[in-house]
Amino acid sequence: MSEQRVTKFAIPEIIFGQSSIRYLAQCSRRLGAKRALVVTDQGLIDSGWADFVMDILRDDGLDFLLFDKVNSNPRDYQVHEGADLYVREKADVIIALGGGSPMDSAKGIGTIVGNGGRIADYEGANRIMRPLPPMIFIPTNAGSGSDISQFCIITDVERQVKMSIISRSLVPNVSIIDPDLLMTKDDQLVVSSAIDALAHAIESFVSPLASPFTENQALKAIELIAQNLQPAILNRTPQVMEQLSIASTAAGMSFSNAGLGIGHALAHSLGGIFDTLHGLVHPIVLPVVMRYNLPVCREKMCTIGRIIQGSSGECSLDHGEEGIIRLEELFAKLEVPNRMRDIVPDSGKLEQICRMAVHDACMLTNPRKADWEDLLHICQEAW
Amino acid sequence: MSEQRVTKFAIPEIIFGQSSIRYLAQCSRRLGAKRALVVTDQGLIDSGWADFVMDILRDDGLDFLLFDKVNSNPRDYQVHEGADLYVREKADVIIALGGGSPMDSAKGIGTIVGNGGRIADYEGANRIMRPLPPMIFIPTNAGSGSDISQFCIITDVERQVKMSIISRSLVPNVSIIDPDLLMTKDDQLVVSSAIDALAHAIESFVSPLASPFTENQALKAIELIAQNLQPAILNRTPQVMEQLSIASTAAGMSFSNAGLGIGHALAHSLGGIFDTLHGLVHPIVLPVVMRYNLPVCREKMCTIGRIIQGSSGECSLDHGEEGIIRLEELFAKLEVPNRMRDIVPDSGKLEQICRMAVHDACMLTNPRKADWEDLLHICQEAW
Repeated sequence: MSEQRVTKFAIPEIIFGQSSIRYLAQCSRRLGAKRALVVTDQGLIDSGWADFVMDILRDDGLDFLLFDKVNSNPRDYQVHEGADLYVREKADVIIALGGGSPMDSAKGIGTIVGNGGRIADYEGANRIMRPLPPMIFIPTNAGSGSDISQFCIITDVERQVKMSIISRSLVPNVSIIDPDLLMTKDDQLVVSSAIDALAHAIESFVSPLASPFTENQALKAIELIAQNLQPAILNRTPQVMEQLSIASTAAGMSFSNAGLGIGHALAHSLGGIFDTLHGLVHPIVLPVVMRYNLPVCREKMCTIGRIIQGSSGECSLDHGEEGIIRLEELFAKLEVPNRMRDIVPDSGKLEQICRMAVHDACMLTNPRKADWEDLLHICQEAW
Repeated sequence: MSEQRVTKFAIPEIIFGQSSIRYLAQCSRRLGAKRALVVTDQGLIDSGWADFVMDILRDDGLDFLLFDKVNSNPRDYQVHEGADLYVREKADVIIALGGGSPMDSAKGIGTIVGNGGRIADYEGANRIMRPLPPMIFIPTNAGSGSDISQFCIITDVERQVKMSIISRSLVPNVSIIDPDLLMTKDDQLVVSSAIDALAHAIESFVSPLASPFTENQALKAIELIAQNLQPAILNRTPQVMEQLSIASTAAGMSFSNAGLGIGHALAHSLGGIFDTLHGLVHPIVLPVVMRYNLPVCREKMCTIGRIIQGSSGECSLDHGEEGIIRLEELFAKLEVPNRMRDIVPDSGKLEQICRMAVHDACMLTNPRKADWEDLLHICQEAW
């Protein structure tokens, strides 16, 4: 760590493990809950998990309301609708059940409940001044890291922009991470979530804000994802999903405190303009972005490469490039799109995407400077 | 991790790095402070650091009171005196500046302020039911880990017992860890603090409550202490002290969530009966306790041994015993007592010490069961 540099590290209280969801009512009461707002989405209602959670609250005699008007790339108006419901019905704690979308919606709702105004007022870093109501998050994918992080991504519908809202106040009080909730997910979601977590780990490991506290977590995440991604598809067991959950949690601790990079800036732009699913972007852009960053962080890329290849012992400079190739080979074997043309309908919009991405807060922590033309070059390489 | 096991992981918000102490007033205000109780001890007043902290508050126009009636192995009556002052003078935040003693005193004061009664009412695990006032800790040694942990150790004067009080509520809101505060400490304090942190890391790594989140931190701490302990004496630089601070913080994250073992149970008994300085116990008992535990955790001891020896590559079973020998050699070179007879005035009291230690909360997380006669055998081996 360079001299005089001050590092901040904040994470929620974590309750982790199979069946940990049974602690939900107890945690809610400890935070003073009498009436919870449960934020989730249609998928979790269809899968039965929302009922499972509501039964836990009901069995404990805890009152609750359901808010399920959340879709992927959650919208500003959905956040306001949820906040209105919270205030009107006098809820006193927010429980989020879902992937990044319900969790980010819950953060948006909490922000408005605690601070008033419109969600766009809080775009950027450290603009939330007053505390949020107590929040308990139950992630149902092992990837977004929203259950750990200071990040909240909400789409401004009018401007077609995914806003990054970053604040210490957005870390929930408690995250209950129960790998059992992952067992029924389809392969594509498991893979794209794990690669999102891998991107969190790799982007934050090479961030100029990385500290020993975040680096340690990032490397653990990379190791566990490299070891468990294929087994999660070929032979999914509770143990494998637990390892991916640990990886996602560790990656969340890293990126929440060290920031992200170009890959996430591009993913936010693509999501804002084309409503592209966030998890589909990373298998496509991660290796290209790693190659772009390689010249300015060779040593760290070697460490990453060595871990991806599972080799112990000393680092050699070749490990950096070899690690990227190994990742590309791994992604090619998985059931996910691996060229940008597979997910972007119109190459004519790439310039607009890159001109927007260059203003994303994640660009500030990419190790190598990049203007919109550099980003365009990256997109063309990934096309 | 075994099936159905639920792990909890909670740490404070951490602000880390040289000169990070300058964030103190800002952090206090964020927690709503108007009048702070500053808990410290005579040593920190003599060294000028207490004035330094009070100047920061004064410059920011923040009102404060000083409570410095704290000594090593802090006493129950000191906690009550501090709590009376807090209530009488209507303080609204507690700032602790010091090693384990001022920090544990601050936790005790916060417990009484928030929950009433006597501090002995809270001995044991999870007996604190109501929240404590906001707490900001500034550690001045790299060892106790009290700035991170759920532990508070207070001496019950009448019973001559060091009580272990363990609760999620004892984790401070913010820890400001500034390695500059360590530069002026004498060698013996630096060494005994670092070995205390090493004992935290090793005892918690082999604890049955260890999780991937704590193991990762424990191994980082062991690595950094093995690399930086001798340099801290031979050629102390801000960089070396920063590495020891990172190690102590990581070890704190580990033991706070995974618990400790026999070494700490004995140290608490010795402190209660003979007022023995906590940090002096570990160089003496740690290797003997490791050897006692070795048969039930050979694989983990190999990992520890490999890291202490700085060897990369695969673990071999010999690494476990070799690591213990390497530690003994290292401790022998340092300016600290390394036999129990050097710090315990009377071998006739060993039985009493062991009969008391066996009831310490730390015994619950030692990997190998032990009765008082096993502990006596350990003490005799260390004599």
